[in-house]
Parts: sequence; structure tokens; C-alpha cells
Amino acid sequence: MEQQTLIETTAERAATAAGQFAGTNPRRRAQALVRIADALDSNAAELIPIAMRETGLGEARLQGEVRRTSNQLRLFAEVIVEGAYLDVRIDDADPEYVVGPRPELRRMLQPVGPVLNFAASNFPFAFSVVGGDTAAALAAGCPVILKAHSGHPELSQRTAQIVVESLAAAGMPDNVFQIVAGQEVGVELLRDKRIRAGSFTGSTLVGRILAEIAATREQPIPFYGELGSVNPAYATVGAFELDPELVKGFLASVAGSAGQLCTKPGFLFVPAQVALGDVAAAVGAVAPHRLLNVNIGRAFVGRRSEVIETPGVTVLAEGSVWSDEHDQQFVTPTVVEVSLDELLNTETLLEECFGPLSIVVRYEDVSDLAGVHRRLFPGNLTSTVRATESDWASGQLTELISALAETSGRVLFDGWPTGVSVTNAMQHGGPFPATTTDATSVGTAAIGRFLRGVTYQSAPNAVLPKPLRDDNPWNVPQRRSVAGLSATWGTLQGTY
Amino acid sequence: MEQQTLIETTAERAATAAGQFAGTNPRRRAQALVRIADALDSNAAELIPIAMRETGLGEARLQGEVRRTSNQLRLFAEVIVEGAYLDVRIDDADPEYVVGPRPELRRMLQPVGPVLNFAASNFPFAFSVVGGDTAAALAAGCPVILKAHSGHPELSQRTAQIVVESLAAAGMPDNVFQIVAGQEVGVELLRDKRIRAGSFTGSTLVGRILAEIAATREQPIPFYGELGSVNPAYATVGAFELDPELVKGFLASVAGSAGQLCTKPGFLFVPAQVALGDVAAAVGAVAPHRLLNVNIGRAFVGRRSEVIETPGVTVLAEGSVWSDEHDQQFVTPTVVEVSLDELLNTETLLEECFGPLSIVVRYEDVSDLAGVHRRLFPGNLTSTVRATESDWASGQLTELISALAETSGRVLFDGWPTGVSVTNAMQHGGPFPATTTDATSVGTAAIGRFLRGVTYQSAPNAVLPKPLRDDNPWNVPQRRSVAGLSATWGTLQGTY
Repeated sequence: MEQQTLIETTAERAATAAGQFAGTNPRRRAQALVRIADALDSNAAELIPIAMRETGLGEARLQGEVRRTSNQLRLFAEVIVEGAYLDVRIDDADPEYVVGPRPELRRMLQPVGPVLNFAASNFPFAFSVVGGDTAAALAAGCPVILKAHSGHPELSQRTAQIVVESLAAAGMPDNVFQIVAGQEVGVELLRDKRIRAGSFTGSTLVGRILAEIAATREQPIPFYGELGSVNPAYATVGAFELDPELVKGFLASVAGSAGQLCTKPGFLFVPAQVALGDVAAAVGAVAPHRLLNVNIGRAFVGRRSEVIETPGVTVLAEGSVWSDEHDQQFVTPTVVEVSLDELLNTETLLEECFGPLSIVVRYEDVSDLAGVHRRLFPGNLTSTVRATESDWASGQLTELISALAETSGRVLFDGWPTGVSVTNAMQHGGPFPATTTDATSVGTAAIGRFLRGVTYQSAPNAVLPKPLRDDNPWNVPQRRSVAGLSATWGTLQGTY
Repeated sequence: MEQQTLIETTAERAATAAGQFAGTNPRRRAQALVRIADALDSNAAELIPIAMRETGLGEARLQGEVRRTSNQLRLFAEVIVEGAYLDVRIDDADPEYVVGPRPELRRMLQPVGPVLNFAASNFPFAFSVVGGDTAAALAAGCPVILKAHSGHPELSQRTAQIVVESLAAAGMPDNVFQIVAGQEVGVELLRDKRIRAGSFTGSTLVGRILAEIAATREQPIPFYGELGSVNPAYATVGAFELDPELVKGFLASVAGSAGQLCTKPGFLFVPAQVALGDVAAAVGAVAPHRLLNVNIGRAFVGRRSEVIETPGVTVLAEGSVWSDEHDQQFVTPTVVEVSLDELLNTETLLEECFGPLSIVVRYEDVSDLAGVHRRLFPGNLTSTVRATESDWASGQLTELISALAETSGRVLFDGWPTGVSVTNAMQHGGPFPATTTDATSVGTAAIGRFLRGVTYQSAPNAVLPKPLRDDNPWNVPQRRSVAGLSATWGTLQGTY
């Protein structure tokens, strides 16, 4: 199809599907999600080898990723059947309401309409065709146009086929899910007025360009981009005594999936007096891992040289870099060390390095860390602080913890930030550049990104959407404000 | 103070206040809100005459507005004491969790930090110094910098003084509320990295400029602008039979506060065969009302001439326009009529007219309305449809209702859109240009705009924010996912 025709057809189909899909019973939509999940699992043996070939990721990692992706769909299915995600609020009419006479008002969250989702390179299942953003949009009741990542084209097409077949088998409307490829097609679709929200996982550079397109088009739309994060970690002297394996755990987190994870710890702040042991030997045990694609490989090798050659930087573990006849890079982790003073004077070290490289920062005084963090790390997906019971009790970390919470989506007090759980309480999103909004792209709260509030005033019950009706046929939680009970703050006034 | 110093000082003070304010007990913050409310009420007799002089609005309207503004503060106080607004979620650690082993995760919403709020001209209390956006931000725990509207400078300063004194008397940290004036100061502050969110009520032109500044600054921030809305209303033949006062109600909604309301119905779609009676006579009974300021007066007079002179437009009620020696305009409503075909061919008629002007559109066939609405009105705060039981039952309005819900924040089935209730179920925000995001700026859900999710992973109870602790000292609702119960979708799989 000619490109303009393709864009027009795809957008129009999504718009047509939107109305039909929005009205589906969440129980039937949930069944469709579970059917996709089942199909993913039963086709895993076919899909994983394609993913291995196209991305260089290992079999065990990809098996875990498929399991996570299919179970994420099942979890979202549960959420929409339960119905609290609709945030139903009903205010009975109340002529005596103190803020002024009140008509009957019924509010719920409704799907925003067609969502354009840009797939990521580094999670060919969990952040790609039917990963978190797609699952959240479908759960919300929004048709999805998936812009495939060029890094795994065959896997994308095959997964899309499974999704389309599963949706059809579950009786969902046509074109609830469509796939397109190509940067230009993605950008043109993002400008199309029928697209009502965008989502993206990738680099700060590209994410920022797309976010600005979404914000400046004729009718701006929300754009949920998950961009860059260096995930600083801080450890006290006591933390190293408490956990003799601390360095090993850190290195494993840096090395996993060749460091190509958005939550890889890019900095570890270590007290000047702590001996780290033989980092080079520990890293030497890591097997070389292919980087995802030629571009990422080239960028990593360049960035690694830049870091190593920065004055003041000491190499703790040089790691290996080797490229095959197709220019694919195979690497092991690189770990360097720098003093806090040097870091404060070297802005270029602060940029994210996508791949297995991390920077150990030597600090003298734990009381400097809160100020340093606020100055250097304005927005991250995660921050980590490792300490002991007596450190916590002493209060010397209180200000640092506040600084981490102000600037991060998730703050860890044990373990390492890689391995993001898909749960109710997960937050995967923080101040820019971690995400373009503060919304989460992982966990059940991610569904809310593709919903908007609509209030029905003085409506006959028969024309209301089912979740707002008095007979509540979908049996969803309804928060009701009855007449005559609106002025309860008298008790509050009494408290001072 | 020199302008750069003023900006620097104001931003720095807000940033310093942010950390202290974020940690305040919501019960104490609620008491501060109630104290402001009490002070507003007890100073109303002094404030209202200033507002009358500066805005030209009437006494009764302003009395109602003060009541609404103070009760809004009390309502928000209730909400934060209750605590559900924090959306606390706790996942117990669960090594057997099906989506993958799960660490302990605790998530709550936390204040985003300093909020810059641009006051509106048309609600000198309810959308100005301590109106909806300020109340929501303070309730959330965010310091506010209020950019005063130039239309009511004395009232702004006096109200700000009351707010500052009340906050101090309630023991809140210094600089939780600050006021500035001047467009340039506002824009420079919006670019300051210490400002973490913006809010605005005003024109599409200015709102769009500010939204783009917020989206393209070095660290982009959310910007909640409530911009333009024409609030179309549709009536069936039966609606006029059911309610002989329908036209009168419509005209009252157009005339109130001289039409200077964001929810004024700008279009009424009337069946071709319905006789509207003597609109000119009905409008003739309306007393002239001053427009808010010279600029708004000039814009209204110009826009009104444009509309009247558009080919195909018939004047039903010309209204009067008179200006005093200070160029203040005094006006009565203008109502014009146009056929649907003419409207479809005259894009210039679609633009919002801020002031007492509305356009009656004559239509032939109710089944055209859904398509017409989708084509002409992509984003509105409200839409209204007036019909009868048998109209609803016939299904002929189903598609129109869907179209209204897709494009509007609030859909009315009786009454008129002016007079926005501050309640749990209110939605005042819709697709652009109604708002820059789909968020609501009225009602208790408005508080959520100034919050972001933060997850604490494997944290010692003692360092957690109080709402996340097991002993729950603030007694807020906590949604807990216990270990071992995570895989409940087996039942769901059984349903197909």
C-alpha cells in the first residue's frame, strides 16, 4: 500500500474500532486478553528462537519475559473484571448541598480512543507488540496501533498475527489491534487527529522529539514516553558489612541482559574507605553477551571509550568488546571508578550509557549525598539506598531518602533495581527524563493512562453506560455521595 | 525587587517550602484549608465590593462565588483527611507470584512540588487566588505560586494576604503560598526548573503558548490548562413540548455573568419546525451587564460584529452594546440563527465567542447530529442533549450520546451547563481545546493533578511515609495484596 493510503486506512480503521471496543463488557475484553496470553504461551517455543536470533538475548531471559508478558495480560484482565479501575462516582442530586445546589452527577473513566504505541528494542515481548503499553490500552478499551521496532521485525509480525487471531477468536471488533512499521509512518500517525494518545519506550532523544510532536500538533494529545534513567545507588559502610555479596549483586544487576535495561544501576556511591575486592576478576567470570543491534553496539562502544578516557576516571574492570562479521558487538561489563569531586566537575559522565557499564563513585561523607543527588539526578525511574538498621535509626539518611523520593518513581532499600515486578503497587515512571509524564508504564496503575473522566448530569438510567446505572449490571464498585450528607467538615473544624 | 531577583527568590522559596509542606499531616493541612475558608467568609463583606469594582460582576453572583470558593476548600479538607486520594497500595513480598517473584512494594501518591497557577479573569474568587487550582495544589501538599490576573489586582493582593495570614496561623511552613504579577514574570517562572507543574484557566491562544513552554522546557512538566469550549446543546421536537420554558432556560444560561463563563452554551441545535417565540423580547428583559475588562469588551464587540455580518446568519435578538467613558463595554445578549448547512460551510462561526452571544442552528434530521457533532466539535467541557423519555427509548439519540461522551468532559441530559458543581463526581475538562490534558479542574478529582506515584521497595517500616506503614498512623485506606493470592484469574479462564 502506498504510505499515505496506509496511514489513512490504519487511522480510520482504529477510529471505527474505537467506538465498538469502548462499549465492550470488560469481562469479554478480559477473556480476549487471557486468550492472547494463552496463545503467547502456547507459541513460545516458536517465538523464542526468532527473538534470540533477532535480539541476541538469551533463552532463559526470553522464557521469563514471555511468562511475564502473558501473566501481565492475565493480571490486567483481573483488574478490569473487578472494575475499580473505572473510578465510578455517583453524586445524588442535593438541593441543600453546601457548595451550591447539586444536580445528579455520575462520573466514570472511559477509554481515550486509538492509542499509538512505539515498541522498544530491549524487551521484544514485555515492551513490544503485546507488552505493557498494548496490554494497558487494550484493557482500558482503546484500539492499539503498534509501531514495530526495527530490531525484531519477524518476531513483531508473528506476534501481531497471534494477537489479531486471538482477538478475533474472542469476538472482539475488527482492527482493535493493528501493526505498522517504519519511523516515518509512526511519526505521521502520531500527527493524525484520530490518534488520541501515544506511548513509547526508548531513548531520551527520540522520545523527546515524539513528545513534542504530540504536544504541538493541532489537537495535542497525551504522550507517555519512558526515556532515560541512570538509577543511582548509594551504599553506606555498614551495608557492605551487612551484605558481603553486595558488590556481586550490583555487578549481576549491571551485567544482566548486557545492561540493556532501563533500570540498570548506572552509578554506585561507595564510601572512600570500603575495599571493593577484585572487581575485574568478578566481571571476568561474565560471559560475553551480544548487544541488541548494530546501532546500540556502536553507541555503547563509543560511550564506553568516552567514559574510560575521561580524566579522573580509573578502570576497575575493563570488560571486553568484540564484534563479529556482521558488526554485532559482543561485550562484558565495564566498571570504572571516580571520586565524587571529579563527578561533580564532569557533567559528561552523567549521561546514561545503555549497556553493561557502571560508574563507582567514591564519597567521603554520607551527609553530602542528599545535596549531590538533588543536583545531579533530577529524574530517574529508580534510586537505591543500601544501609543498616542503625543507619536508618540514626536519621543520617532521612534527607537522602526524601531526595530520592522527590526525583524517582521507585526507591529501593534492598536488592537492585533491575527486574521490575508487574503488580498493583509498582511505579515505573518518574520526573523527566525518566518519563515524559509522571505516569507508570508498569503495573496495574498503567491502565489509567488510557482513560479519561466523563460525567453524566441528570441522565435517564437507560442511556447511561452500564457501570453508572443504579442496577449496576457489571457489578463494579460505585462510590456514592448521598444527599444531605455533604457537609461533614463540621467535625474537622472542631479539631483546632 | 528587580525582576530576575524576584523570580529567583520566589522559585527558591517555593522549592524550600515544598519538602516541609509535603510531609505535613493531612489533618493539619486540612485545618489550614478550613482556616482560609473561614477567613474568606469573614472578610467577604470587604472583598466583594473590590471584586465588583474591578470585574463588573454583580453582588449576588460574587456572594455565591465566595461561598463556593470557601466550601470548596472545606470539601478538599475532608478529602485529604479521609485519605483515599493517596491511593495507597501495598504488595506483600511473594516469591511464588506468577508474574515473577515479587519483593515487598508500597506505593502512594506524593505531591509533585511547587505549582505555578495562572489565575482567571472571569471568576475572581473561584478560579483566582485561592480558587480551584490553588485549593487542589495546597490539598495535595504542593506550594503554590499564584500569578495574579491583571483584571483584579487589588482583590488579588488582598485575598493573597488573607491566605498567607491563615496559613501562618495554622502553623504551615513559610512560603507555601506566594503571589506574583505580570505576564513576563509568569512565563519566566514557568521555565524555572524548580516549578514542577502549571495550571491555567483562560484563552486557547494564551493557554496553548504556555502549554508548549511547559512541554518544551529543559525538564518538561505537566501543564493543566482549561482553555476554550463552545458547549453545544441539542434539543429534539419533544424537548420543546416537554419543557415550554426551554428557550427561557437557554437564554438565562447565555445571559448569566454576561456569558463570560467557560460553560456558556454557544450553540443550540433546534429542529427546523419548532417556533422559538419572541427571542428578542425575552432578551430585551435582560439588564445590561459590564464585561470584565476593556480587552474582553473589545474582543466581544468585534467577534459579535463578525458573527452578525456572516452571510446566512439571521439575527434573532440583536442585544445592546454600550461603552462608558473608560471604554468599559456594557452589553445584553445577542442571539443569531443559522441553518445547519450554512454552519457546515462557515468554519469561522465555530470559534468560541467569550461573552453573551449564542448561535441557534436549525436542523432537519436528528440522525444527522452525531456526524455533525463529531465533525464540528472535537473537544468541549460540556455538551447537552434535551429530549423526552420516548426519544431516549427510540434509540435515535444513542449515536449522538456516544459522540458527546467521546468529545466532552460532561454530558447533560437536563438543565444547562453553566453552574458547575464542586463534587466528587464532577468532570470539568475534556479533549483539547477544552483542556490541555483530559484532567478535571473542578471537583475532588482535581487534586490528583498535583500528585505522582512513588513506590518504596523492601523499605524498613520506620523510614516509610506514614500512609505506607503497617501501623497506619493517619488511618488512611490501604489496598493490600497478600502473598499467595495473586493468581485468581483461573476463574476467569473458566468463563469462555
